[in-house]
Amino acid sequence: MLGMEVQVAVAKIGKYATSSSGDTVEVVERPQGGVSAVLADGQSSGKGAKIVSSLVVRKVIALLAEGVRDGAAARAASDSLFTERNGKVSSTLNILSVDYQTRTLVITRNNPAPAILARQGQIKWLSEVSIPIGLYRDTRPIISEVPLEAGLVAIAFSDGLVHAGERLGQSLDIVSCIQELLEEEAPSPQLIADTLLSHALRLDDYRPVDDISVVVLGIMKHAGDEVRRMVVRLPLEPNY
Amino acid sequence: MLGMEVQVAVAKIGKYATSSSGDTVEVVERPQGGVSAVLADGQSSGKGAKIVSSLVVRKVIALLAEGVRDGAAARAASDSLFTERNGKVSSTLNILSVDYQTRTLVITRNNPAPAILARQGQIKWLSEVSIPIGLYRDTRPIISEVPLEAGLVAIAFSDGLVHAGERLGQSLDIVSCIQELLEEEAPSPQLIADTLLSHALRLDDYRPVDDISVVVLGIMKHAGDEVRRMVVRLPLEPNY
Repeated sequence: MLGMEVQVAVAKIGKYATSSSGDTVEVVERPQGGVSAVLADGQSSGKGAKIVSSLVVRKVIALLAEGVRDGAAARAASDSLFTERNGKVSSTLNILSVDYQTRTLVITRNNPAPAILARQGQIKWLSEVSIPIGLYRDTRPIISEVPLEAGLVAIAFSDGLVHAGERLGQSLDIVSCIQELLEEEAPSPQLIADTLLSHALRLDDYRPVDDISVVVLGIMKHAGDEVRRMVVRLPLEPNY
Repeated sequence: MLGMEVQVAVAKIGKYATSSSGDTVEVVERPQGGVSAVLADGQSSGKGAKIVSSLVVRKVIALLAEGVRDGAAARAASDSLFTERNGKVSSTLNILSVDYQTRTLVITRNNPAPAILARQGQIKWLSEVSIPIGLYRDTRPIISEVPLEAGLVAIAFSDGLVHAGERLGQSLDIVSCIQELLEEEAPSPQLIADTLLSHALRLDDYRPVDDISVVVLGIMKHAGDEVRRMVVRLPLEPNY
């Protein structure tokens, strides 16, 4: 795997005319090597949803940092939310990880919305029935794990992407959109995330009816140095 | 501040021939709006240093997520490390924040290495005496806070940047390097971080004698959409 790198891209927008997105996404290094992106979408929208999703993501990150495996971290986050909110508040949870220990890419889903895994240009729609965390005791995630290889792409998103366009009677054909992107020469995770989100925004007439977050993780060819890089861009809120 | 955005860039490399960098950097959204970048450099290098710096950053992030202000979070992290390691292990700590509540940029330093604040093209070298956390009870950070305005740039780094080139009797003139960059039209934080790190790498003959991390936060003009974006790039380790 020499000459390869992990790229993670996040693109994210809040529901139109709300002050804060109810989605939370964080990307963290794993203690034994590798990286994890954690996405949670708290029930409802606005401030309350943000508190829940932030709580869930922080819990998962703290456990991953201690070396807890993704599936166990998701179950712990569920039990923790269930206990704290008496089973009355749910949150979706997705974890995309590159784990240097197991040399695998791991997709963890507690989310009715599907996730996507692309290998060698083939798109797999991960849609096995999966429920959000926090509503029941002992909620288990659906886990997909594949050996690391060049060209792997994993995609997770909040349901705002799935519901984009509904107000206008339209919907985003996510698979076709990704298929088209993958026909290009090794599209970057950044391009994939931006394209999906911009299609969704167009369908929502640039006034998203829900928070939309897209997270894309890919194993890419790498011709550069051994430097790790991160860039975050955050528009100052219009009402700032 | 309409039409402005916060950009945060991180560039980071481990000491040559060690498996993991002792530095930890994480970027998180603030619960009341805004963003914080947290950099810690654990004493010594390799695995032990990584455990310490990761612990410090996690502690700070957890507190920031609860709405604790930066200075208080730094003090709490210091007391916590002091208690956990009996005052025998130190770590540097820098926090760069854009706080929507106070409408300020906040630079928090527990680091003998200076930090930098550029306003309207003027570079301020923040070098007031500052000690790492963990060695004494009640260690206080040095805090610089300025109102948000277009063109503000804050830069923090681990001491690997300061010591780059020492083996070969050279050193990096950080201020001149930044001055030169600022003479360009609104250099992006990404360009600033990459340029500083690549200069340091060259002085170390591409075998860094210490972990080097550079974090740059800037308030930039923004002509795009309201989408928040993050990209992380992580080379797979050579010994992977």
